[in-house]
Amino acid sequence: MNEILRMQARTAELSREDSVQPAVVVREVGLRDGLQGIDRFMPTSQKKEWIDRCRVAGLREIEVCAFVPEKYLPQFRDAEEVALHAVATPGIVTSALVPNTRGAERALAARIDKLVCIISATESFSQANLRRSKAQSLAELKSILHRRDEYAQRGYRAIIQVGVSVAFGCPFEGIVCDADLFAIAFEAADAGADEVSLADTAGQGDPARIERVFAALSRRLGKVRLGAHFHNTRGIGLANALAALRAGVRYFDASVGGLGGCPNAPGATGNIATEDLVFMLEAMELDTGIDLHRLLDVRSFLADQLPELHLSGHLGCAGLPKGFIQAKPPRRAR
Amino acid sequence: MNEILRMQARTAELSREDSVQPAVVVREVGLRDGLQGIDRFMPTSQKKEWIDRCRVAGLREIEVCAFVPEKYLPQFRDAEEVALHAVATPGIVTSALVPNTRGAERALAARIDKLVCIISATESFSQANLRRSKAQSLAELKSILHRRDEYAQRGYRAIIQVGVSVAFGCPFEGIVCDADLFAIAFEAADAGADEVSLADTAGQGDPARIERVFAALSRRLGKVRLGAHFHNTRGIGLANALAALRAGVRYFDASVGGLGGCPNAPGATGNIATEDLVFMLEAMELDTGIDLHRLLDVRSFLADQLPELHLSGHLGCAGLPKGFIQAKPPRRAR
Repeated sequence: MNEILRMQARTAELSREDSVQPAVVVREVGLRDGLQGIDRFMPTSQKKEWIDRCRVAGLREIEVCAFVPEKYLPQFRDAEEVALHAVATPGIVTSALVPNTRGAERALAARIDKLVCIISATESFSQANLRRSKAQSLAELKSILHRRDEYAQRGYRAIIQVGVSVAFGCPFEGIVCDADLFAIAFEAADAGADEVSLADTAGQGDPARIERVFAALSRRLGKVRLGAHFHNTRGIGLANALAALRAGVRYFDASVGGLGGCPNAPGATGNIATEDLVFMLEAMELDTGIDLHRLLDVRSFLADQLPELHLSGHLGCAGLPKGFIQAKPPRRAR
Repeated sequence: MNEILRMQARTAELSREDSVQPAVVVREVGLRDGLQGIDRFMPTSQKKEWIDRCRVAGLREIEVCAFVPEKYLPQFRDAEEVALHAVATPGIVTSALVPNTRGAERALAARIDKLVCIISATESFSQANLRRSKAQSLAELKSILHRRDEYAQRGYRAIIQVGVSVAFGCPFEGIVCDADLFAIAFEAADAGADEVSLADTAGQGDPARIERVFAALSRRLGKVRLGAHFHNTRGIGLANALAALRAGVRYFDASVGGLGGCPNAPGATGNIATEDLVFMLEAMELDTGIDLHRLLDVRSFLADQLPELHLSGHLGCAGLPKGFIQAKPPRRAR
């Protein structure tokens, strides 16, 4: 009973958050996508502070960890403790990567709000990144959705997002045709996924294709929410984000300092930088709810904590332009 | 008479070039905008080789030098010799920056195809960058147009481009209002300029404003050709280029390796990188006539010649995606 009450309270809290829904939601993925490529274990206390600072900057959705076997990614051996901290933090939607049903069980036990399941758009990348076929990934998704539904009967319904990797091009197979990509999105939606996020894992997308694909999918996926996950491998990540925005996408992944990039995608550099993306959106008068000054504080924190890394993103060097005002006064976190 | 024949031959040659006009023209400005911020004098032979390599890569328009007093920018003390080489190179439209009538005289004497005259969108930047008022810049433009017309009577009509600096925001005054910007563009057009290029000198523009401004101007400027000159100060230079493209702009400045940035605009980093811009355009199936592999050769050449600089641009690191094909087979220079 206590459990149900706690979940109801959390649902109500998230609903209140929704009442001040920004025009565009930016999900911070540095704690997962950024850290997965970093061998040195970041102390759990620093990860918690990272989350806290993101929240203070106004980020309302954070991918906080991956529930993967420790032998593959020891960086996430503290996933439960990080998740516990994040879930207890008011005002944020927590996401976690779950590669399989075992990972999903752990995420569900930790009461993560959103589980991110990965399906590759090509067989070659699926084998390289996940050591399984696309069909096996779909079977895992269905198993995860089944577990989600079981939990839902007890009052906690996690959101299931399907992340389609190499959606706009594969480092092994090259161009991904629309039919293959759409088939995965439709299968995910038919299976019961709540969200589909298309990832340009190796930076092979271009604005024309991205706008076309997102526009076509948004017409066909009905109530399934579409998200975009772009890497800046070839420098056009923000142009691609602009193209997705024009196709109606209002939900973007990014990482402060451009951390990340897939270790299994040769030549793939980091995510689009949260600070540059938010600057672009706010300059276009699209409210993100994020305080750019405090977001740059997160960047400074990361520069201190991860001195071995080269952070990308330009706003950290250039600062905000003279006379710049955000779309709406930032909502300061309490 | 020899002179007139030579000019007629050149005009005919440029007309032939126009018959294979690419969908989008990219002007390489590294030799001017890039070099003006570099103290060490680059040997004239290297500048000539740079031009030759650009031409081999398929760049058909190159800003080759600035005709400025040597005491201000000693880098350009060899402007005449560089211009002579460029003008004698078949198949390229040569541009040169001319800050005043004296500079224009030198450029006209060198038979440069296009003279770029600068007017700032704000008084503060005009004083800081050019040590004169906007009104004085306009008077200089009129004087330059007069000299151009005198030469035209002898069979050589240079193209006059007005470059409007800080068009989308000034590091001293902040936001530039549309009315001020449009007034300059209209005055330049009324005075007889052939082209107006809007420069986001300090990287303060955003895609929404850029699309709106270019669309409004293209409706009102009639036959005056519009160009865009974007810096990547805050990481959104290529998103801004995409926005201008949508407004109908088909003429962009860029520099290989992102060289450049205005020395008088605090915090302004380099131009958008030619290689990343051309990659974006070609991926969108917009023909530029530029061979991306050979363009990356130009980048390698610059990395060798200017080892003290950090080149920006991502394509040089990531390379072309697997399976990438350009919009049209590149036209190999003879």
